[in-house]
Amino acid sequence: MADLETAPARSRGGRQSRQARGAKPHAIIAGIDRQIPTFDLLGEEGLVRIEAAIDTILKEVGIDFRGDDRCLELWRDAGADVEGERVRFEPGLVRSIIARSAPKRFTHHARNPARSVEIGETHLVFSPAYGSPFVHDLENGRRYGAIEDFRNFVKLAYMSPWLHHSGGTVCEPTDLPVNKRHLDMVYSHIKYSDKPFMGGVTAEERAEDSIALARIAFGADFVDQNCVIMGNINANSPLVYDGTMSRALRAYARANQCAVVVPFILGGAMGPVTNAGAIAQSMAEAMVGVALTQLERLGAPVVLGNFLSSTSLRSGSPTFGTPEPALGSLVVGQLTRRLGVPLRCSGAFTASKAADAQAMQESAVSMLAAIQCGAHFILHSAGWLEGGLVMSYEKFVMDADFCAAMHTYLRGLPVDDNALALDAFREVGPGKHFFGCQHTLKNYETAFWDSAIADNNSFEQWRDAGEKTATQRAHEKCKAMLRGYEAPPLDPAVDEALQDFIARKKAAVGDMWH
Amino acid sequence: MADLETAPARSRGGRQSRQARGAKPHAIIAGIDRQIPTFDLLGEEGLVRIEAAIDTILKEVGIDFRGDDRCLELWRDAGADVEGERVRFEPGLVRSIIARSAPKRFTHHARNPARSVEIGETHLVFSPAYGSPFVHDLENGRRYGAIEDFRNFVKLAYMSPWLHHSGGTVCEPTDLPVNKRHLDMVYSHIKYSDKPFMGGVTAEERAEDSIALARIAFGADFVDQNCVIMGNINANSPLVYDGTMSRALRAYARANQCAVVVPFILGGAMGPVTNAGAIAQSMAEAMVGVALTQLERLGAPVVLGNFLSSTSLRSGSPTFGTPEPALGSLVVGQLTRRLGVPLRCSGAFTASKAADAQAMQESAVSMLAAIQCGAHFILHSAGWLEGGLVMSYEKFVMDADFCAAMHTYLRGLPVDDNALALDAFREVGPGKHFFGCQHTLKNYETAFWDSAIADNNSFEQWRDAGEKTATQRAHEKCKAMLRGYEAPPLDPAVDEALQDFIARKKAAVGDMWH
Repeated sequence: MADLETAPARSRGGRQSRQARGAKPHAIIAGIDRQIPTFDLLGEEGLVRIEAAIDTILKEVGIDFRGDDRCLELWRDAGADVEGERVRFEPGLVRSIIARSAPKRFTHHARNPARSVEIGETHLVFSPAYGSPFVHDLENGRRYGAIEDFRNFVKLAYMSPWLHHSGGTVCEPTDLPVNKRHLDMVYSHIKYSDKPFMGGVTAEERAEDSIALARIAFGADFVDQNCVIMGNINANSPLVYDGTMSRALRAYARANQCAVVVPFILGGAMGPVTNAGAIAQSMAEAMVGVALTQLERLGAPVVLGNFLSSTSLRSGSPTFGTPEPALGSLVVGQLTRRLGVPLRCSGAFTASKAADAQAMQESAVSMLAAIQCGAHFILHSAGWLEGGLVMSYEKFVMDADFCAAMHTYLRGLPVDDNALALDAFREVGPGKHFFGCQHTLKNYETAFWDSAIADNNSFEQWRDAGEKTATQRAHEKCKAMLRGYEAPPLDPAVDEALQDFIARKKAAVGDMWH
Repeated sequence: MADLETAPARSRGGRQSRQARGAKPHAIIAGIDRQIPTFDLLGEEGLVRIEAAIDTILKEVGIDFRGDDRCLELWRDAGADVEGERVRFEPGLVRSIIARSAPKRFTHHARNPARSVEIGETHLVFSPAYGSPFVHDLENGRRYGAIEDFRNFVKLAYMSPWLHHSGGTVCEPTDLPVNKRHLDMVYSHIKYSDKPFMGGVTAEERAEDSIALARIAFGADFVDQNCVIMGNINANSPLVYDGTMSRALRAYARANQCAVVVPFILGGAMGPVTNAGAIAQSMAEAMVGVALTQLERLGAPVVLGNFLSSTSLRSGSPTFGTPEPALGSLVVGQLTRRLGVPLRCSGAFTASKAADAQAMQESAVSMLAAIQCGAHFILHSAGWLEGGLVMSYEKFVMDADFCAAMHTYLRGLPVDDNALALDAFREVGPGKHFFGCQHTLKNYETAFWDSAIADNNSFEQWRDAGEKTATQRAHEKCKAMLRGYEAPPLDPAVDEALQDFIARKKAAVGDMWH
């Protein structure tokens, strides 16, 4: 396996070798098993009040399912009150559907079994940002995403040990027809990576195509019994699922694949400006989507998603990495644990147009909230810029480095004899240094997380190395990674079968460009 | 009161007026009363094990007090085992001294009573960074700090509503003699601000001078009964207090003023490389210093401080904003709550040489840890760069903006009828927007925190405004603030008395430059 994170070690020797060793670039890290508690913001009373509000929204206002008769039928059969396209739910109905069959945790299989990940309970997974029409790097600036960019981000995620997942629409390949690009996207995830991935959702048949490609890669029987692909399903907040989304959701569930069900709420636009209300709405929408997967197929893997954003008072534009959604994530985590399903929440969010101080401050706040709230599947872990409009090469590398830091954070703080180091105090005593003591020698190499991006050198060293900012260092690292990429092995027969399927699908219909 | 945060509002009208209103620049914010819980990392078993390690260090290894006979006498009288300059403590002794008289909370008075702050229990205070020999701004680069810079940072802290405290050595005024600069520093805090402040500690007589100046400003009787000045006392880690520090500590305590007692531990150098051991050491050192204040004067206000840093495997240089000290802060918070004294912890730390993406990411991690661990006095809240060697003008402004965000974070997430917004859902219903609904109109202006630095505009607006990074925007804001500074009123008689005292002190001895 080529991994450019190791290339400097080979070419530059000593100092960099130690760096590479610290970062364990060869390690296959298949998710994280958290060793730290969640940060629980609200007490029982607050949680119960929000749960009651969820019930009120579902019973009194309800959810519209538009243009999907089969979905209305499923709800009618489940005992919901269906009036036209409006569906209302007695308190407890949605919860009981979820509790009956939605798994608390499941395995999301990768093409390379060593990279399969657990999603749910104490397990969590970092996945790249999703859905940007634009890409950006320091050399070429901001431009529409192309399939070449898409492949680059799949490669970068493959090479980063700290991203456990290849993602889905890592950027929009706008140089390909909208009705065919899902084929190239899924193919790229399979061809250029061996990590778990997501498929198309923008039409039911694109979801079906994505799953069909997964069947070629994994075998149809295996796919029927195991989760090998995810679809990211957005509710049309407030309180609507359009037929495209509910049909794609059902396609994934029907195939026993994972729908990630995510409302999209910018406070003041698609939801109220107050956090508790937006959370209640988000949970109501997501819970109904989660329940729908179980009506389509009992026991289908599913992730409850959350996407809350605040709004600038000045412009009305969405803001990210602000305190309100960070607090909101903590509460969403509490509510979702009470439901007992895996959670997708937050990510490395920012509204900044540059991969600058604003970008990384906002992303740190947002990502820490995801970690602390107990999220299990963290989409948008790397690359997100400009409110999601842009996938940034430099930010991808900086964010992946932050994911590395979060691996250490999630390991927590061991309190054992070695960690307490009492013999070191006895050996060293007052006023002496710990540099050469037994305990330091024994623990030094593994003691501290070592960033691949941060510059911790002296001012003089930094100045003599060109006074580079973190963003400039990330740019160089990104280029070096891409230069050193080597694809994981793929069975040529599978590759051919995938390409055949894609060629037939592409030939069958004309190109659509919007 | 002049506050340049409002100047754009006066000159630019509409849009900026709303911004100014959102940021409440005229408000006097005298600290924060936290509405959120702490993030408790360890369970009872882990805490008890660390407390046992603290006891072992204090009993078996002990602490050296060097060159301060009076201090050794105090310890002997208190029942400690004094052998030469080494002092050892039976388990429970230090804790019982602290428990007997150290206040859980106290008022730190400001020259302007409206700016007096509470320190301890649910109250917390942001104070600028402390002790940098260098300063930096985008225009003039990196250079030694001067008294002009010192005054500038006092002015900036005065103008920022989000810093509640004027700090101490906001940078070293290296253009003044080392044995006299404390006089100019304390005078600057009194003259150019009316917020609470810190005095000199680098010699017992400089601590006494600082307190004497405070007596002129506040009245001697008032000072004897109330805390009006703090001294930041570093232990000489590992496990040593030199006489300079212990005498300065006792000078503050004797005057009933607050010593902030802070070990300074870089893992692998002044302490072990493992977190639990470094925490035990830090607590042992700090607890002994806290107890010493109570031996000097029962009931003297005191803050237990913590400064843990990790180390780069590559260079051995300290690293900041990394996961290990963030986790460490959480545990230090738990241990200090069990002691029942106020805590100083973390701040906007970074090892970056530029006020860039690295700087703000690391600072966000570090500052959130301080907030979540329940720290009460957060020194180094604004300006810290390059491991504390540099006070940065731009970072000061960005950090102060992050302190603003933390005000909102600490307010938590209200769950009441207005926040739950059920009437809004009834009014709007599925598929509609919340822009114009009653609930939005009622809550919009106060709903979301609005950054003064972040750019949340569209790409096109940002591009047309010059594609400025957050650091460049902070630079402009900083200059505008300093241009618009107006000093708070100061009684001319007090001013004259302060200047007389300083002139006499300066005339009495020659200049020392190192």
